[in-house]
Amino acid sequence: MTPEESSRLLALAPAAQDLLFREARTATAFAPEAVRDDQVRAIYDLVKFAPTSMNQQPMRIVLLRSQQARRDVLAHVARGNRAKVASAPLVALLAADLRFHETLPRVFPHRPQAGDLFADPGVRRESALFNTALQVAYFIVGVRAAGLAAGPIIGYDADGINKTFFGDGSKEIVTLVNIGRPGKEAEHPRLPRLAYHDVVTIA
Amino acid sequence: MTPEESSRLLALAPAAQDLLFREARTATAFAPEAVRDDQVRAIYDLVKFAPTSMNQQPMRIVLLRSQQARRDVLAHVARGNRAKVASAPLVALLAADLRFHETLPRVFPHRPQAGDLFADPGVRRESALFNTALQVAYFIVGVRAAGLAAGPIIGYDADGINKTFFGDGSKEIVTLVNIGRPGKEAEHPRLPRLAYHDVVTIA
Repeated sequence: MTPEESSRLLALAPAAQDLLFREARTATAFAPEAVRDDQVRAIYDLVKFAPTSMNQQPMRIVLLRSQQARRDVLAHVARGNRAKVASAPLVALLAADLRFHETLPRVFPHRPQAGDLFADPGVRRESALFNTALQVAYFIVGVRAAGLAAGPIIGYDADGINKTFFGDGSKEIVTLVNIGRPGKEAEHPRLPRLAYHDVVTIA
Repeated sequence: MTPEESSRLLALAPAAQDLLFREARTATAFAPEAVRDDQVRAIYDLVKFAPTSMNQQPMRIVLLRSQQARRDVLAHVARGNRAKVASAPLVALLAADLRFHETLPRVFPHRPQAGDLFADPGVRRESALFNTALQVAYFIVGVRAAGLAAGPIIGYDADGINKTFFGDGSKEIVTLVNIGRPGKEAEHPRLPRLAYHDVVTIA
């Protein structure tokens, strides 16, 4: 099946396929153009509808707008990622709320005791991390939907970031994301993808 | 900001926003219409481009096409989910390949020794589960891009499914997904979403 044949089997318009997946790239350098809060809000107001287990929605977002916050995070970012984080128009911390069970009655109202399933902190953390990972992926798609590029990074000292930004232990960073309009010189050749037959089996 | 104002701030066309997020719903019942392998291939060939850490791509997909495979999985699905799994046009197991480091030299060729970072099975499993969760989310978006609905389910005996389908211990199920064209009567009212100010803080 050619890419064109494959594309025609989808209901999503080809331009949208390109914007979100085929032409979108992880950005390592950005144009010097601010990312506004209303753009982040538009991204969130789109991707908030995507599904999580029991509608948990554990992802929390910290937008690093102050010089101090940018310095604080840079102190914990791996050397090889520092220039990217220092120069990104916007840096967001995507974190798991380990106390998502407290908001569960609001978002899963037909089962008010659902939070009891997550009384055990280990079970709760595992669920928070899994569902935050889903939401991180939706958020990356949303950044692209806004015509921006995302540069997700996990090369950092998580404990250091958690202590600095979530000192009460209620949240854990899952991914840091640089966001902005991609710079013209930012693109490396795309890395190889696994083929359908490498990934899919029939039982 | 109204939904219309929010939508206009995005580069993604409004119809695509609706298809993937605003009008898409988790399906619990389906129209009696097959999902073909070429549709799954078109979904995969779209979402394979979305990013994972170090391009790991650990997600593996098992399409349950035989009566035997459907029976095998039903034996391990929680009672409340059985009717949904029994009646879905297609059931897919989305699993984490715990040996993704073996394919890493193919997909991260500029750093042939990258697999050494994942020599420790615990570190490797954590990375496989996180990146598979990202890919599960991309896959759900892809199912919607194909004009279909996804019904992700995690209510099952994972050990039982792993033993039955991945007996050598090389993979772990992360999510089961029912896939099909949604049935007309399938929709419940959408559950509440957290608001922007619940989720986003500025530092």
